[in-house]
Amino acid sequence: MNNKEFIAELSKQINLPIGTTAKLVDDTIRILEEHFLHDETVSISSFGTFEVKKKMERISVNPTTGKRYLIPPKLVLGFKQSNVLKEKFNAE
Amino acid sequence: MNNKEFIAELSKQINLPIGTTAKLVDDTIRILEEHFLHDETVSISSFGTFEVKKKMERISVNPTTGKRYLIPPKLVLGFKQSNVLKEKFNAE
Repeated sequence: MNNKEFIAELSKQINLPIGTTAKLVDDTIRILEEHFLHDETVSISSFGTFEVKKKMERISVNPTTGKRYLIPPKLVLGFKQSNVLKEKFNAE
Repeated sequence: MNNKEFIAELSKQINLPIGTTAKLVDDTIRILEEHFLHDETVSISSFGTFEVKKKMERISVNPTTGKRYLIPPKLVLGFKQSNVLKEKFNAE
């Protein structure tokens, strides 16, 4: 499901116009981002936890040329599903 | 930031009561979950992509007792940040 389909489905579910729904989603993402940029973990109950993790710099080797190069450190947003979600997925 | 703080901040941002905001978030999560349970990938543009992955069963060994036991296969919801988000995090 892409973003457009997601907005359309949410719009129908919450009974608000597409434009309003898209703005709601944008606002939600902006709030989340602001916290992530301050390195803050965000827990959304029954869904999961978002956490920014730092991947350390490392040396990689091009297998064809044998040339070594440095991959710089980077920040990655990780997600861990809640136990509620885990149980739903793995229910017998 | 926990779920309550998230709802409170979103409520202020979108100018809707706490109860309405909480329902919006619940509706959003329910829509996402339905797609995940049907093994469908969901992309939310400028944020990232959620994908359900199957972790294979594996044998683990208790290091103290040496006893071997089987960890059953399980489904895990994974998240990959969008390039937009990656660039925001890693901007100089």
